[in-house]
Amino acid sequence: MKNYLKHDEWCIIEEGFNREFNEITESVCSLGNGRMGQRGNFEETFTGKTLQGNYVAGVYYPDKTRVGWWKNGYPEYFAKVLNAANWIGIKVEIEDEILDLNKAEVSDFIRVLNMKEGYLERSFVATLASGKQVRVNSKRLNSIVDDESGVIRYSITPLNFDAKIVLTPFIDGDIKNKDANYDEKFWDEVHKETAFAEGYVQMVTKKTGFHVVTGQKFQIFQNGQAVDFQSLPLKAEKYVASQVTLAGKTNEEIVLVKYACNLSSENHAISDLLSNAKAYLARIEAKGFDTMVAEQAEKWAAKWEMNDIVIEGDVAAQQGIRFNIFQMNQTYTGEDARLNIGPKGFTGEKYGGSTYWDTEAYCIPFYLATADQQVARNLLVYRWKQLGKAIENAQKLGFDKGAALYPMVTMNGEECHNEWEITFEEIHRNGAIAYAIYDYVNYTGDETYLAEYGFEVLLGIARFWAQRVNWSEAKKQYVMLGVTGPNEYENNVNNNWYTSYFAVWCLKYVIEVSEKIKASSPERYSELASITNLNETDEFAKFSHIIGNMYLGEDKELGIFLQQDGFLDKELIQVKDLASSQRPINQKWSWDRILRSCFIKQADVLQGIYFFEDDFDEETIKRNYDFYEPMTVHESSLSPCVHSIIAAKLGDKARSYEFYQRSARLDLDDYNNDTEDGCHITSMAGTWMSIVKGFGGMRVRNGHVFLAPFVPENWTSFSFKIRFRGNLLNIKTSAQEVTIENLAGADITLFVHNEEVSLKEASSVTIAHKNK
Amino acid sequence: MKNYLKHDEWCIIEEGFNREFNEITESVCSLGNGRMGQRGNFEETFTGKTLQGNYVAGVYYPDKTRVGWWKNGYPEYFAKVLNAANWIGIKVEIEDEILDLNKAEVSDFIRVLNMKEGYLERSFVATLASGKQVRVNSKRLNSIVDDESGVIRYSITPLNFDAKIVLTPFIDGDIKNKDANYDEKFWDEVHKETAFAEGYVQMVTKKTGFHVVTGQKFQIFQNGQAVDFQSLPLKAEKYVASQVTLAGKTNEEIVLVKYACNLSSENHAISDLLSNAKAYLARIEAKGFDTMVAEQAEKWAAKWEMNDIVIEGDVAAQQGIRFNIFQMNQTYTGEDARLNIGPKGFTGEKYGGSTYWDTEAYCIPFYLATADQQVARNLLVYRWKQLGKAIENAQKLGFDKGAALYPMVTMNGEECHNEWEITFEEIHRNGAIAYAIYDYVNYTGDETYLAEYGFEVLLGIARFWAQRVNWSEAKKQYVMLGVTGPNEYENNVNNNWYTSYFAVWCLKYVIEVSEKIKASSPERYSELASITNLNETDEFAKFSHIIGNMYLGEDKELGIFLQQDGFLDKELIQVKDLASSQRPINQKWSWDRILRSCFIKQADVLQGIYFFEDDFDEETIKRNYDFYEPMTVHESSLSPCVHSIIAAKLGDKARSYEFYQRSARLDLDDYNNDTEDGCHITSMAGTWMSIVKGFGGMRVRNGHVFLAPFVPENWTSFSFKIRFRGNLLNIKTSAQEVTIENLAGADITLFVHNEEVSLKEASSVTIAHKNK
Repeated sequence: MKNYLKHDEWCIIEEGFNREFNEITESVCSLGNGRMGQRGNFEETFTGKTLQGNYVAGVYYPDKTRVGWWKNGYPEYFAKVLNAANWIGIKVEIEDEILDLNKAEVSDFIRVLNMKEGYLERSFVATLASGKQVRVNSKRLNSIVDDESGVIRYSITPLNFDAKIVLTPFIDGDIKNKDANYDEKFWDEVHKETAFAEGYVQMVTKKTGFHVVTGQKFQIFQNGQAVDFQSLPLKAEKYVASQVTLAGKTNEEIVLVKYACNLSSENHAISDLLSNAKAYLARIEAKGFDTMVAEQAEKWAAKWEMNDIVIEGDVAAQQGIRFNIFQMNQTYTGEDARLNIGPKGFTGEKYGGSTYWDTEAYCIPFYLATADQQVARNLLVYRWKQLGKAIENAQKLGFDKGAALYPMVTMNGEECHNEWEITFEEIHRNGAIAYAIYDYVNYTGDETYLAEYGFEVLLGIARFWAQRVNWSEAKKQYVMLGVTGPNEYENNVNNNWYTSYFAVWCLKYVIEVSEKIKASSPERYSELASITNLNETDEFAKFSHIIGNMYLGEDKELGIFLQQDGFLDKELIQVKDLASSQRPINQKWSWDRILRSCFIKQADVLQGIYFFEDDFDEETIKRNYDFYEPMTVHESSLSPCVHSIIAAKLGDKARSYEFYQRSARLDLDDYNNDTEDGCHITSMAGTWMSIVKGFGGMRVRNGHVFLAPFVPENWTSFSFKIRFRGNLLNIKTSAQEVTIENLAGADITLFVHNEEVSLKEASSVTIAHKNK
Repeated sequence: MKNYLKHDEWCIIEEGFNREFNEITESVCSLGNGRMGQRGNFEETFTGKTLQGNYVAGVYYPDKTRVGWWKNGYPEYFAKVLNAANWIGIKVEIEDEILDLNKAEVSDFIRVLNMKEGYLERSFVATLASGKQVRVNSKRLNSIVDDESGVIRYSITPLNFDAKIVLTPFIDGDIKNKDANYDEKFWDEVHKETAFAEGYVQMVTKKTGFHVVTGQKFQIFQNGQAVDFQSLPLKAEKYVASQVTLAGKTNEEIVLVKYACNLSSENHAISDLLSNAKAYLARIEAKGFDTMVAEQAEKWAAKWEMNDIVIEGDVAAQQGIRFNIFQMNQTYTGEDARLNIGPKGFTGEKYGGSTYWDTEAYCIPFYLATADQQVARNLLVYRWKQLGKAIENAQKLGFDKGAALYPMVTMNGEECHNEWEITFEEIHRNGAIAYAIYDYVNYTGDETYLAEYGFEVLLGIARFWAQRVNWSEAKKQYVMLGVTGPNEYENNVNNNWYTSYFAVWCLKYVIEVSEKIKASSPERYSELASITNLNETDEFAKFSHIIGNMYLGEDKELGIFLQQDGFLDKELIQVKDLASSQRPINQKWSWDRILRSCFIKQADVLQGIYFFEDDFDEETIKRNYDFYEPMTVHESSLSPCVHSIIAAKLGDKARSYEFYQRSARLDLDDYNNDTEDGCHITSMAGTWMSIVKGFGGMRVRNGHVFLAPFVPENWTSFSFKIRFRGNLLNIKTSAQEVTIENLAGADITLFVHNEEVSLKEASSVTIAHKNK
């Protein structure tokens, strides 16, 4: 755990340059606008520790799979987020010295990610080997208004010399993914050109054929006046630059404003890419830097208006939650149903792929409550679009008749993971994808989605489960053999309770949904039956037989659900009794030892209880929580939030807060020593859930919002906003009371601590907590 | 399955050139002498399908591990058998045409592996594009008398022309392993030199630093007369050659005799390598080709005298078993305790490593019965030498206090496999290594081995088991979680009966052995206790507690042992009901489907019953055989022989023969479509076992040989020889009777069909079979 970033309510602040942590700070200071993004890299040359990373949403490369031992059924390729052209680069030479913070003496360094207004700013004084001193200030944003562009204002002021300063803003596409399996470059050059203070590189991805044009256009000012300069064009492989030589004078500020754009063939005809890029740059240049900054602040303000969580009395917690909300918004805006939420967003390239079950299990609840319902709907439609591929994927594994297995990791619907115990066996992901449909309909009330898209997905998933179970003559029940649950510290187990419970739920839900559609849109239902080749009598009879006869492991004596067959044969020890030298076990223990231990990576039985809590009484939840949580090492960033929510429900406020803390500042404090690879984007939604579903106790049941808020001990108050159908509510909780404001929308009835509360349009109500 | 090789009692014969099967024939026609070997490649240029392979025993390279997803504990390197310098090469040019059977028209082609005398011969007539015809005959051997050398007699006769013939015998070390993980070359050149009709390349392996000098020296004859020729030296990277231009004349035979040697730093001081190689070649050249051939035949005759199995009435079966015995003898001679038996011997490079549990489970019984006991002893000592590494290996996985886990695959004692479910979990290998000690002592009566080497190994293994099990509060017994049994179509299962049963046996055996040593050599025992830090009271008490309280799964109703927990939850279908389009399942099904199916790759419960048959009554064996065999797909070459032996024991002669057939001609008929990668060397010992332990019913109990022979229906008779302690016995079985000859050694008492039989020195006895 590190603690070098300054606590602040709205900003992430690095005071003084932490060279050794630079890659971490780069991750944390990443910028993005849903379409493009990049890590918090420096504009000028930097030869120290850095991971240069620029990314364009939806543009990927299928890297050839690398395995030690091939297993039948492995995908041949792993679709990777592509490191794309670097558009922020500005080479700075002072006389013949290159400005490089790895070589210069650095003072007055400050790097600030301003989350309120959505920009990254950096200032420092550098003393070069020659003794020349310059002050630099750079301010950069990825526009959320013009979301195919970014802009930089780069200011440099000689402090103790008059000398030639050469600025070379460039676009460099000659880059490589750090995680390339075979050390290959994934881009080919198509075209490049330069003009006065302007340049473009067009590249195409190998195999997938995505075209991207990255362009720059820049202006130079000295002492606030536009400078009349010469621009010397430079070209190299996938590289264009314009070199400008200026007369630097002591205390005279030189400012380079660099406009850049990234246009991809996902959004433009290939033939138009170049001309559109030129028009784009001309337009934003005309708009100008200050206007772009102002528009950015305005649009961010509108987002915060919807999204913000305010914590009083704990600046670190305030900063943590805002950072998470900020990154979620930077990663995915919900405007494009072809996109999804990569595990690292635009902050790194580890893991590859863009879509995991994290999206459905963790991110959808966030977007449902904080954005237009179209955003969550687009995430659902994304999976519907990939149904055909999910059916193909299941076919590769021996299933048929429309059974669908969604991939563990994907970009375009094809599986791209290759560990058999995950790829082939961590099939519970199908459950989360079905649940997200339920979640969406339950939250929004939009039942039309079921007939339009949902049913097909649910049926494909149900068919998979019905084929995946088998009848055990020994048990005279259906069993599900050879699976990996959410707790990936168990592989190839039998009867994982979570997966089996989820399978049964999916079977029930598809039957329920079919009844709804039959009743509301009988014609559409016939159409769906025909599209899906549904033999309702036989198929639903099979589903019902499984529902009624599924084996779900339970230990009656302990009163717990069994994570899997044989779990109680393990040596049952607790995490607190594990020497700290042994942790994290995934770095200290060999895999077999982890597997046969009782230690749990992340919520498994408890993940099921989280999803289906209304199915269980509080005593049952408590027994399972008391049994499993002490064996949980929380070595997945997805773990603490679920425990936080369950602890909150059980009234264990202290532990609920403890779990919250583990996830809220995960990246800011580099809790797991891995933030240098990028931020844990999807688990950030989990942090939001800890507050809203945990401390806020927010649920939606039968079309109503339920709240059961409490304030953690060391906070004065916290407030969060949720959009619920037509309303926007602000819920502020202190130790004594909760105040609910109906900020937008009609009268609404909700439940606070299980008591009905009516709220008129534009009114608020304050309710004292009862002693609990 | 292919059937292009001619059936013959002593030879493997390819009549007519089967271009498409060339790599298979190369595997089958491999030569070796325990120190070096090579595939049945052509001497002259061949641009068609070929896998050039030359190997030097004990010389390996640790190739950097390649995995998709790293697991803690994986070894960094995989020690690979090294493809070494090609010493057989002779480039043949006729005028300006290169002789290349891929381009010439080929007639009268015949390739013969003569197993009786140990050489490979090939003849053909080639018609070149120009119309020139030559007859070629080559005869090659890897000397088992001078086992660092080989010799080739290469004869070429112009049939229809007079023209210049250029012969270029060469040594080419610029080769690459086909299975290199990163496409690297593993050898560096150290030195090369040429002299008249002579040349040497000295190379060193990267990382491991093994030096090998490969040299050639040659003579040329025309019409039977030594030719006075000019030798033009040629050199290139890791390559030396001597080019000789001769005047070819119609029907005048030109013969090149090429002597070659491979001297490695394993057997020579590096500084002496080159001079020793020169002396070696001078010596064998003086000996001459004909003498080498004669000596080879003589030494092979002596081997066959000990080893041969004679089958009357079935030429294919006769050829099959001789091929297996021949390859076993080519691979390993038992003279060097640093060597072991690679899964492909000198016939290919697939799998890497040289030592698997195959050695102990399959090969040791073969060598015990067919070679001096020193041979099996050396194989045991090999493991003793690697005990320290086995202890280190266990430490890497979290074990301590002298617990030893032998590697799944190794070259120098370090693990070099990297699939977690195998590397970390297929731990039953430890059992086979302990059993081999028992087997050796039981067979030879040499109890001194236990005190000298055996005890330390047994104790390390027992300690491993004692730490690897855990107490299950649920079962109130010890359990063994997370293992992979011999049936690798199950991974990470709990309570694999085979492994657990074996663990208990190991614990019992080490206690028994300790009692023996204490009684016979109390001083040595104290010494051993001190060397091993033995706390006998506590450790043996723990061992005994486990012995008395180990959980061993059983289904009382079915009367079977449970392969693992939950086996009966599977859909229990039989292999005969599986469509042939679905087989082999390891090529047709995804891994998860294989895992959750009931299908068994190779004997698992039955492997245990094979090892410990005297622990079970015949009904129990039959119930398990009847239950498990029908679910067994035998997709490992190690499977059929074990079933053959059990079937024989149960009196199921027809099935016993059927299983035998599946393994006996596995490579000759390319049964599994993979002989092109090399032959299945270790399973060849299993074929031998099918005959001797299966049809012969041979066992050793209490110092006596037991026989229960029967002859398969379509054979007239079969006879095999065994060495047993001081005796050499020949056992010939026909449908009516069995005749046992005491070929060497004193009077001996043995048991035939469970009846005591006394055999005087140099006598024989014939016993009629009873009706059974």
